[in-house]
Amino acid sequence: MADLPLAPGETIGILGGGQLGRMLATAAARLGFDVVILDPEPDAPAGRVSAHTIVAAYDEPQGLQALAALASVVTYEFENVPAAAVAQLAEMGVEVAPGPLALRVAQDRLEEKTFLNAHGAPTVAFAPADTPEAAVAAVEALGAPALMKTRREGYDGKGQRWVEHAADAARAFAELGGGPVILEAAAAFVRELSVIAARGRDGATAIYPLSENHHENGVLRRSIAPAQVAPALADQAERIAARILAGLDYVGVIGIELFEMADGRLLVNEIAPRVHNTGHWTQDGCEVDQFEQHIRAVAGWPLGPTHPVARVEMLNLLGAEADDWLRYAAEPETRLHLYGKRDAKPGRKMGHLNRVKGL
Amino acid sequence: MADLPLAPGETIGILGGGQLGRMLATAAARLGFDVVILDPEPDAPAGRVSAHTIVAAYDEPQGLQALAALASVVTYEFENVPAAAVAQLAEMGVEVAPGPLALRVAQDRLEEKTFLNAHGAPTVAFAPADTPEAAVAAVEALGAPALMKTRREGYDGKGQRWVEHAADAARAFAELGGGPVILEAAAAFVRELSVIAARGRDGATAIYPLSENHHENGVLRRSIAPAQVAPALADQAERIAARILAGLDYVGVIGIELFEMADGRLLVNEIAPRVHNTGHWTQDGCEVDQFEQHIRAVAGWPLGPTHPVARVEMLNLLGAEADDWLRYAAEPETRLHLYGKRDAKPGRKMGHLNRVKGL
Repeated sequence: MADLPLAPGETIGILGGGQLGRMLATAAARLGFDVVILDPEPDAPAGRVSAHTIVAAYDEPQGLQALAALASVVTYEFENVPAAAVAQLAEMGVEVAPGPLALRVAQDRLEEKTFLNAHGAPTVAFAPADTPEAAVAAVEALGAPALMKTRREGYDGKGQRWVEHAADAARAFAELGGGPVILEAAAAFVRELSVIAARGRDGATAIYPLSENHHENGVLRRSIAPAQVAPALADQAERIAARILAGLDYVGVIGIELFEMADGRLLVNEIAPRVHNTGHWTQDGCEVDQFEQHIRAVAGWPLGPTHPVARVEMLNLLGAEADDWLRYAAEPETRLHLYGKRDAKPGRKMGHLNRVKGL
Repeated sequence: MADLPLAPGETIGILGGGQLGRMLATAAARLGFDVVILDPEPDAPAGRVSAHTIVAAYDEPQGLQALAALASVVTYEFENVPAAAVAQLAEMGVEVAPGPLALRVAQDRLEEKTFLNAHGAPTVAFAPADTPEAAVAAVEALGAPALMKTRREGYDGKGQRWVEHAADAARAFAELGGGPVILEAAAAFVRELSVIAARGRDGATAIYPLSENHHENGVLRRSIAPAQVAPALADQAERIAARILAGLDYVGVIGIELFEMADGRLLVNEIAPRVHNTGHWTQDGCEVDQFEQHIRAVAGWPLGPTHPVARVEMLNLLGAEADDWLRYAAEPETRLHLYGKRDAKPGRKMGHLNRVKGL
């Protein structure tokens, strides 16, 4: 196992070489660490800002051995890291943070909601279904419309269907592949919020102000942070975050998506055991951003401050929108963050911008 | 020649792989660029955060060819880039920014002072000397004590000697190697200041607030910025910076070291045609720091804002001082920047910290 706190000059491994890995890698470099990226794709964006890159499938033993030979601590940029990879790394004496419990809970929507409710973090009503008949029964029990989601995989609105009538549930079940699903009652939320929180190796926590989020077609379009919220709502979010972090014995940064209900309650929509798109505002709105915070946590360093120093509107640049880089670069209040992706496929996250305003 | 403005996805070359190159490289990555570092040393700090590294002497044709094959624009992190390298790159169709005039002026203290005075940027009185006899005569003319400096090379207080009496000038001349020197009258300054300024491809300029600097043994120890100065002094610094930038037809960030005299005049001590240690405060005190600003300028992008958002005390971490990283990491107001250098030789710049205060 690594000697913690990890000293500058040591190497941190990151599973996944996309934009989150890239921004984690440059944060790690600023603290004096070397970084090794493992990603199945050559020329991954994060590899181009890291000391080492290993091109291998996430569960390929040779790749993991090469990773273990370089890195004393490993983290990841996406929650669908194969459990087998984490287990293999553990056998080689390399700790993965956030740990296996966080991954297991985040990889299965049924486990996730069950865990959340068991730890005092309320969610919408839900029911699992492994057959078309069970899906119909679940919608009847929850009431239509209900949201059907595959239990595993799925992100940015993929792997989910609205079911308008119980009778449609069997078809939706088939359309989602016929595997285990979860049905969720419709949440009559007034606003989508999220909280980015961190927990250190010593159990200390650091929680950023809430972000207000706007999605389009299931993909985050825009965040505004700190969100305008009553103190009681902020307290509620902090309590929820603290319970989740403690319940997972968590190490690192976590993204917690919330529904604000008309009656003032917050429900947890989902959790992501990693740095989160709705936390990008911290790059230009806080002294220590979510990327450095995550590196600090997994390296066993003390956590940094989370108070806001500016109000930020974060806008994702999807596909060809990033072609407008010159216009954005000319806006005095706009900080541009581009990911170095080669191919601007429609809807692909190519970058984001933070428009910075006074608090 | 490169199509400017340089589009994200293009590659920027940097001559020199130390800490300045490293911080330039991560700034370039944030804007979506790839970076190639050319440095004679393997495992250079900047190479570990860049897409490509070429290990070669700065004037080795093969290395420069490899650089030209990758990069459409090349910049540098140190002013002693061989003129021959810049000329070779130009022949291969690769532009180097800042350009040859800035390099020539910055590489020779006599050219530098002559240029400055010719462009309305006052300096201390000075005289060149190519022989011991001329050195004695120069000290007699300027008055003792006078500061003898080699005309070329020399940084962080290296390559210079105080001459207390004209009679000592011949010995000092020999100690400095017997090559061409420049003698400078002692500057009875009350404070050392510097101004970090930038000029874009379109001639637009952007000037950061002044920094107040404290040196020890010729090496920068501490900067405080924005420095507390009267508006007239800030105006004077801006005028000097604007004249230098225009006179050099400059592209990029420049560091201009100033002496504040008792009578309120500013004299230019020296200029560095690159990002500058006294500008590190901008990383945590401005929305666009000197590194991104330099990349914007050399890439032909519009310059970013330079107004301060915080007051910063920058402290260099020399040699073993960087071993205290854990203590610094625990200070809420301290942002730590470590360079990833392997060997903490005494006096070596291993990192810096920015202590952030309200404006």
